[in-house]
Amino acid sequence: MVDEKYMEQIRKVPGWETKQAFSGAYNAHPEGSRMAPRPVKFFRPGTDKVKSLDYILDAIGLKDGMTISFHHCLRNGDAVMLYVVDAIAKKGIKDLTLSASSLSKVQDCLLPYFESGVITAVDTSGARSKLGSFIQKGGLKKPAIFRTHGGRARAIETGELHIDAAFIAAPACDRFGNLNGVEGKSACGSLGYAMPDAEYADHVIAVTDGLSDIPLDYVSIPQTQVDYVTTVDSIGDPAGIATGSIRVSKNPAELLISRYAAQVIAATPYFHDNMVFQFGSGGMAIATAGYIRQEMLKKNYTAAAGVGGVSGFHVQMLKEGLIKTFYDPQDFDLTAIDSLRTDIKHHEISASAYANPFSACPYVNMLDFTVLSATEIDVDFNVNVLTDSYGKLLGAPGGHPDAAAGAQMTLITMPLLRGRLPMLLDHVTTVVTPGESVDVLVTEYGIAVNPRRPDIAECLKGKGLTLTSIEALREKAVKLSGKASPLELSDKICGVVEYRDGSIIDVIHQL
Amino acid sequence: MVDEKYMEQIRKVPGWETKQAFSGAYNAHPEGSRMAPRPVKFFRPGTDKVKSLDYILDAIGLKDGMTISFHHCLRNGDAVMLYVVDAIAKKGIKDLTLSASSLSKVQDCLLPYFESGVITAVDTSGARSKLGSFIQKGGLKKPAIFRTHGGRARAIETGELHIDAAFIAAPACDRFGNLNGVEGKSACGSLGYAMPDAEYADHVIAVTDGLSDIPLDYVSIPQTQVDYVTTVDSIGDPAGIATGSIRVSKNPAELLISRYAAQVIAATPYFHDNMVFQFGSGGMAIATAGYIRQEMLKKNYTAAAGVGGVSGFHVQMLKEGLIKTFYDPQDFDLTAIDSLRTDIKHHEISASAYANPFSACPYVNMLDFTVLSATEIDVDFNVNVLTDSYGKLLGAPGGHPDAAAGAQMTLITMPLLRGRLPMLLDHVTTVVTPGESVDVLVTEYGIAVNPRRPDIAECLKGKGLTLTSIEALREKAVKLSGKASPLELSDKICGVVEYRDGSIIDVIHQL
Repeated sequence: MVDEKYMEQIRKVPGWETKQAFSGAYNAHPEGSRMAPRPVKFFRPGTDKVKSLDYILDAIGLKDGMTISFHHCLRNGDAVMLYVVDAIAKKGIKDLTLSASSLSKVQDCLLPYFESGVITAVDTSGARSKLGSFIQKGGLKKPAIFRTHGGRARAIETGELHIDAAFIAAPACDRFGNLNGVEGKSACGSLGYAMPDAEYADHVIAVTDGLSDIPLDYVSIPQTQVDYVTTVDSIGDPAGIATGSIRVSKNPAELLISRYAAQVIAATPYFHDNMVFQFGSGGMAIATAGYIRQEMLKKNYTAAAGVGGVSGFHVQMLKEGLIKTFYDPQDFDLTAIDSLRTDIKHHEISASAYANPFSACPYVNMLDFTVLSATEIDVDFNVNVLTDSYGKLLGAPGGHPDAAAGAQMTLITMPLLRGRLPMLLDHVTTVVTPGESVDVLVTEYGIAVNPRRPDIAECLKGKGLTLTSIEALREKAVKLSGKASPLELSDKICGVVEYRDGSIIDVIHQL
Repeated sequence: MVDEKYMEQIRKVPGWETKQAFSGAYNAHPEGSRMAPRPVKFFRPGTDKVKSLDYILDAIGLKDGMTISFHHCLRNGDAVMLYVVDAIAKKGIKDLTLSASSLSKVQDCLLPYFESGVITAVDTSGARSKLGSFIQKGGLKKPAIFRTHGGRARAIETGELHIDAAFIAAPACDRFGNLNGVEGKSACGSLGYAMPDAEYADHVIAVTDGLSDIPLDYVSIPQTQVDYVTTVDSIGDPAGIATGSIRVSKNPAELLISRYAAQVIAATPYFHDNMVFQFGSGGMAIATAGYIRQEMLKKNYTAAAGVGGVSGFHVQMLKEGLIKTFYDPQDFDLTAIDSLRTDIKHHEISASAYANPFSACPYVNMLDFTVLSATEIDVDFNVNVLTDSYGKLLGAPGGHPDAAAGAQMTLITMPLLRGRLPMLLDHVTTVVTPGESVDVLVTEYGIAVNPRRPDIAECLKGKGLTLTSIEALREKAVKLSGKASPLELSDKICGVVEYRDGSIIDVIHQL
């Protein structure tokens, strides 16, 4: 967890004077506080919202020091951030904060605007490649903030993250400003991660390559929130936006882990008729879902609901009736996008509904169980999904800490080693998901239950499972890989890792 | 419009010191102001929301002087207001403000709680029967507020109407707090009018006779907004909630008016392929829609979207493909409710999305034309839909002023006389919808175009329509009915009529 010496550094950043260190997954006490006020607007009927970006930037009065935001639903195909930031740069505006629901490798193209001072602060879920390196060279004016999907929604809604202008890439958009992600040549699926921005930003601008002269039938973000619409030839590269389909893992070790995970789940009371679950989109999670599907068929169980990012495998279960309904903040492949558009049981939800802890309960709180991956885990069950073994940025918290906190049972599926490096450590390089919210680690060498959950350990006895302790697994890892010398990291910090409630759970070090 | 002497009375009411008189349908300048802050909440996963009403009233700390709210989607079948108010009264709590999206005759049962001081202030769209009489006897502590559907959403979102506890009648509700109006024995359809309350009230309590142990597939109001769920045997009487079906008018004069209205529409540029329209649910509006349907078939036109309350006739057009999509804040009959549940092109929207003028544009702003009714109209095209010819409360503004202001062309269909009373006057008894937003009056004696709209008058020339002036129609009415002596109303006011932007457009007099 975060050292107090770093909290001192953090509290010296203007505006961050009251930042708190993480003190527990369920320690938030926001009672009595209030959401950020949303802007009041008035548009006379007949107002034409379709304008050039140049016109819009002037009309909204964008200026130095403001915060602009984007969603990452176009993933590694996005062309909108570059288009907008370049137009802003041409106006000589600088010192902006870039708030993105995440940043992919494709955003390497923004590096020149970081180097020239157009963008000097960042908050995001992930940052990697050239932007990650820039951050870890200490190139920003203040530490980058890494947030969970639910945490970002919370930050926006509480006013901690005030967005001056949200630029929303829109695969389809009508002249009234209604937009969706399921139609058009650049369809990306659910726009859940853009919804908090659209609700709370001072100015909301849709950037579309799919302008419709007639009102959209399918509306993800309504005209009531969208001030301007601007058109471009292409908002992105379809090849980077959605994969054709996501495949089940074929790696034998991963399949073994997935089978173990399914056996663990099936042995607990969380596996029951009308269960609610979330499986990630990784190969092991999908493989686990496949084994769970078999168990469900055997027992004649159905899932009442699926929650979280959707891929073709989830769609298959929805079509089979094995999942009765789906609450979907994000789609990973074309099958999922098509399902969202056409299946009345497939529902788009916002990042806030999905995972914001500061509501009357986000959908992650419904979960009986969730199966998640990890870059690293440690003997306290803390999980890292943000940095590699050398402290280098490569992943993103995403919804990991949110789902882990919400679910009654959180399983981490992870190989004990990757290459020759142990993935189970004494201390993870970066704590992203606290061990308090992680219940079971499943590896190819055995299964360790968090000692906080003796109830789960009890269920697993006598089921033919390879049960062990996290310490024994750690010893096994050391035996296989040799004890690595501890990683030496700089005292200079270039990023903070926010837990979903806004407390600081760890820091990112300069490299 | 409202007399300054009444504004002086109004501004003496505590909290109303800054009330403004109506000054124009598009004169609002809310720029720079902000929505009301919403409450921040935190629920630990696994929290049980299902409690007794008694427990809930204590838990939320309901006390004297607070504001409680209800929706009117159960219409004249509602049993929830009585159930909740009675429980509150039994705790000795008094001096409450009752905020309802509207009040029907069934709410006569609340009279004892008005008389005993449990409820001492009211805001609503309509009030009638015994509650209307109570208000017009001067029984409340301060004037009742009559709002439009869009105006109520605005008042909630801007904080002008702060709701301490919203009690939401829920035909279906799961244990997480997700609820809908389309399932269960008391299905009422769209819960659009309850949505602003659920978003902004300090405490949100679902009252349901359709508790589901598994998460709902169809969610109208999400669990993120609902704090408690309480169960009752019945939330209402199905016979009063929805009619079996709404029929087209069979009255020859009304059919004539409807045919004229359709001819007017068809002669203007607002009748085009991909038009957007709203027809009310009254017999004349449905009959007009029937004629328009014929015109559409002739020209091979379809409507891109329908907006507003839905009845079976709209559903028929949606199923025929004559309407491509529907944005629906309210359903009037069983066919409409069923369509909302099953038709992927039929979309539930909130009162705010529908009609709140203080957003980046409500759905009423989409309207090419709307066909509305009137209780009275005057030579300035001002419309009354709230009081009768004697000043007695009987109707409700509803969405009338909202649709009129949003539409490019607003038609009023109205018989010149009802019984022996003229409905076209020198001055309407109560101004609800300003003449500025009314374009055409269609009566059985001819069609009058508002002089503000010479463009429409021009379109109608040479089309074989009985065109006349509003003054000539007024003379005709006087000739047919004799000139009535002007209505003498008390100077004492017992209600204010708010225009959708919050300004006061008229007052209700004591009787």
